[in-house]
Amino acid sequence: MKNKTPQTPKKRSKVTKRPAKAHVKEKPVILITNDDGITAPGIRNLVEAVRDIGKIVVVAPDKPQSGMGHAITIGQPLRLHKAQVFDGVESWACTGTPVDCVKLAVDKVLHRKPDLCLSGINHGANHSINVIYSGTMSAAVEAAIESIPSAGFSLLDYSIEADFTGAKKYARIIVEKMLSGKLDKHTVLNVNVPLAQADLLKGIRICRQAYAKYEEDFIERNDPHGRHYYWLTGEFVNFDKGKDTDVWALANNYVSVVPVQFDLTNYALKEKLKPWEK
Amino acid sequence: MKNKTPQTPKKRSKVTKRPAKAHVKEKPVILITNDDGITAPGIRNLVEAVRDIGKIVVVAPDKPQSGMGHAITIGQPLRLHKAQVFDGVESWACTGTPVDCVKLAVDKVLHRKPDLCLSGINHGANHSINVIYSGTMSAAVEAAIESIPSAGFSLLDYSIEADFTGAKKYARIIVEKMLSGKLDKHTVLNVNVPLAQADLLKGIRICRQAYAKYEEDFIERNDPHGRHYYWLTGEFVNFDKGKDTDVWALANNYVSVVPVQFDLTNYALKEKLKPWEK
Repeated sequence: MKNKTPQTPKKRSKVTKRPAKAHVKEKPVILITNDDGITAPGIRNLVEAVRDIGKIVVVAPDKPQSGMGHAITIGQPLRLHKAQVFDGVESWACTGTPVDCVKLAVDKVLHRKPDLCLSGINHGANHSINVIYSGTMSAAVEAAIESIPSAGFSLLDYSIEADFTGAKKYARIIVEKMLSGKLDKHTVLNVNVPLAQADLLKGIRICRQAYAKYEEDFIERNDPHGRHYYWLTGEFVNFDKGKDTDVWALANNYVSVVPVQFDLTNYALKEKLKPWEK
Repeated sequence: MKNKTPQTPKKRSKVTKRPAKAHVKEKPVILITNDDGITAPGIRNLVEAVRDIGKIVVVAPDKPQSGMGHAITIGQPLRLHKAQVFDGVESWACTGTPVDCVKLAVDKVLHRKPDLCLSGINHGANHSINVIYSGTMSAAVEAAIESIPSAGFSLLDYSIEADFTGAKKYARIIVEKMLSGKLDKHTVLNVNVPLAQADLLKGIRICRQAYAKYEEDFIERNDPHGRHYYWLTGEFVNFDKGKDTDVWALANNYVSVVPVQFDLTNYALKEKLKPWEK
């Protein structure tokens, strides 16, 4: 069979490659991904919110990848398919996870680090402990590990018909702030937008991650063949009464911004455990 | 079809349920899971290392789940199958991710929080940034979110023929320390064991997570049908020269123990971004 690969990203050309600094005064290159898949309304709204600010390249999963956390694909190959989804915006659908999308985008699509990576807009909340399960946020964290400042955006509305007006407005405000300030290259922001009309949003609150989580419960049923199965459900419970948390901000109609880190060391416990060395 | 579910975990009986405190003076209940799958040599070695210390219950993936990070299964049902893998140890193979295993174990197998959750022994390193991609460590983190002290164990040897002698010895030492001390219920330890003969291991070092990561590279090939694919590979690079890191400890034949947290808030950046609220 003849090898036709017209829809494969271009290989890096050593002749045309420019040093990263040459891009600084040009429009910033902004990589956009998500975890709801490349056809989700949320990513379309994110592209629309910022498309005139930079050169946008989309590399997003070809199917929903919610709850994939920081999963990467090790045991299988990955594919990239040219997508015609956003007019005039280079877009690729990837068979892998959100984190795979970021890795592939940097290494095989852009052949450089973008100036910014944006993930979302997620259909549903990613506040509090959700940051750990979220494919949206894990894509943003992956970018920051790769020294690309990033932000994940989520709207507290799971509906496919969700109104993204307020989320778009604040995504743009935050991206402009990120591009105008001198942010550390490992910056990650977890941005959540309340379920409220855009004109009722009261502004931005810089927050910490609330200690709130789902009290697990699995539905137990039998399938048509009489075999038992379980399906994850659960009730969200907030154990954290602090007014500096993302859950508090959202409940009070603020857009919550939690700066996130990927050094997971518990430094206080590190000191306490020192006697174990003897 | 008749509904036969002889291999389903017993439903919780309100009559026989005892309050958690009644268990304190009994042998501790220890949940064991991993990400290499229930048939991997590593989990067998972990069970052997601690089986006389507590009442062991194994709930582990029915297939390899390396690199799954904190993924949970939302869009599909999960199943638990009774496994005959470890003589005299209650064991269940789960169709889901390592994190799913912990959630299902607590909610549907144990019907209570175990006193400790152990994950591993992983075939391969989970030091430095690997903590974020690792299914082994994500299972341990999930337990800690659920208020169950936990530890993930990894041996720096991918081989199926790996010698777990040293890893078993230190797993036991660390579990005994965990059970004898008064650890916070959210404690998570990331334990890595060097690739060295057991008698050459120099002891335990309490460490921070090194800033070291994989420089991504994807192999590009064409499949038998001429279609392009990518496969993740990459070179490990340590950017961190600190002697208090897990990478340093392992290179110097120490067992590294990194206390891990799941509050990902970057508190320093939180203060810097406060002006965004105006």
